[in-house]
Amino acid sequence: MRIDIISVVPKLMESFFAHSIIKRGAEAGHVEVVLHDLRDYSLSKHRQVDDYAFGGGAGMVLSIEPIARCIRHLQSQRTYDEVIYMTPDGEPFNQRIANTLSLKGNLIFLCGHYKGVDQRVRDLFVTKEISIGDFVLSGGELAAAVCADAIIRLIPGVLNDETSALTDSFQDNLLAPPVYTRPAEFEGHQIPEILLSGHEAKIIEWRFEQAIERTKQRRPDLLDDSVF
Amino acid sequence: MRIDIISVVPKLMESFFAHSIIKRGAEAGHVEVVLHDLRDYSLSKHRQVDDYAFGGGAGMVLSIEPIARCIRHLQSQRTYDEVIYMTPDGEPFNQRIANTLSLKGNLIFLCGHYKGVDQRVRDLFVTKEISIGDFVLSGGELAAAVCADAIIRLIPGVLNDETSALTDSFQDNLLAPPVYTRPAEFEGHQIPEILLSGHEAKIIEWRFEQAIERTKQRRPDLLDDSVF
Repeated sequence: MRIDIISVVPKLMESFFAHSIIKRGAEAGHVEVVLHDLRDYSLSKHRQVDDYAFGGGAGMVLSIEPIARCIRHLQSQRTYDEVIYMTPDGEPFNQRIANTLSLKGNLIFLCGHYKGVDQRVRDLFVTKEISIGDFVLSGGELAAAVCADAIIRLIPGVLNDETSALTDSFQDNLLAPPVYTRPAEFEGHQIPEILLSGHEAKIIEWRFEQAIERTKQRRPDLLDDSVF
Repeated sequence: MRIDIISVVPKLMESFFAHSIIKRGAEAGHVEVVLHDLRDYSLSKHRQVDDYAFGGGAGMVLSIEPIARCIRHLQSQRTYDEVIYMTPDGEPFNQRIANTLSLKGNLIFLCGHYKGVDQRVRDLFVTKEISIGDFVLSGGELAAAVCADAIIRLIPGVLNDETSALTDSFQDNLLAPPVYTRPAEFEGHQIPEILLSGHEAKIIEWRFEQAIERTKQRRPDLLDDSVF
């Protein structure tokens, strides 16, 4: 998989892609992530990429021209499955979308900034709009990094232990059960006895019950879509 | 405001806090963000902070001892309003929570990693659990950065133009209307005429109608909680 991320502040994401599992996935040849500075595609002397909103109001808007040049440049080199715009009014991101996107070949992520991009970018170039939640960030960079992380860790071989991702929250519409590690006692607080029993079948059953119970308490909405 | 973030890979977040509005907010004295390496609080020679899960299964669990030492060390120096654990089974983060947290004084964010933290950390030390969405990340670092960004940009003085945050999506339970900037025509695609009319009142009305329309189409669930 190849992921191209277009941003007006690509530096913001550098340490993330240099230190996370994404780096491991890249080194093993499973994924390539390329950051693009939108200013490199500006036509102006001062590398301007934004301007005031038509009709007035606070906040700058990213112009269509540098974005069009950057996307067309990338599309001239390879075919992309999706051009994804990160925006608070996009489709809410979830594990199902992460699963679907993890099967794609090439993806472009366009990060909004300030008040967002000129609407014509969305009308003419963007094929998918994703929101990571009902809150506003200062830019789409963190949102794109979040999506990239959720997607890339699902690519076989990226996680050390492939079975690890399968027992995560949401893969079966259940929250994960509680986990414990050594010491078995911390300042008088013991771990549940069952986990020391050695009865594998009983432990699996206990975890399943805990997952159901936790989901009922915290996120009953998830159970509506569940098979349980 | 002071935000302390505890992580097993704090480097992952460095570029974000060095290049975003958070940096601007820090330089202006509005906020201080301090990253803590959990390994500095390990008691073991090899700076170990995780261990296998009791009861078996894939994935490592962060141990309670280094986390307890780190949180207690911070709490010995100042009072914290919340100790927030970033976890997919936490309360879904939204703009209302961001607004509330932006009014606090000191916050600790604890980032999970691998399969998460020992449940006793959550039972004994954590006061609030937040999820940024129904998807799984390789760690809580990006989630903590997302929360910090959403919160910090709401602190007065952090954004250049204070009115800018007020017209964002979600502040009134409506998605933001489309925005446009120069050129007025791009390859035959014009901006809506109204925005060139100069009629301020009509532009405000148009934007409001567009915001309602977009919210109805994309996120009708938001309108249930809205005053409109």
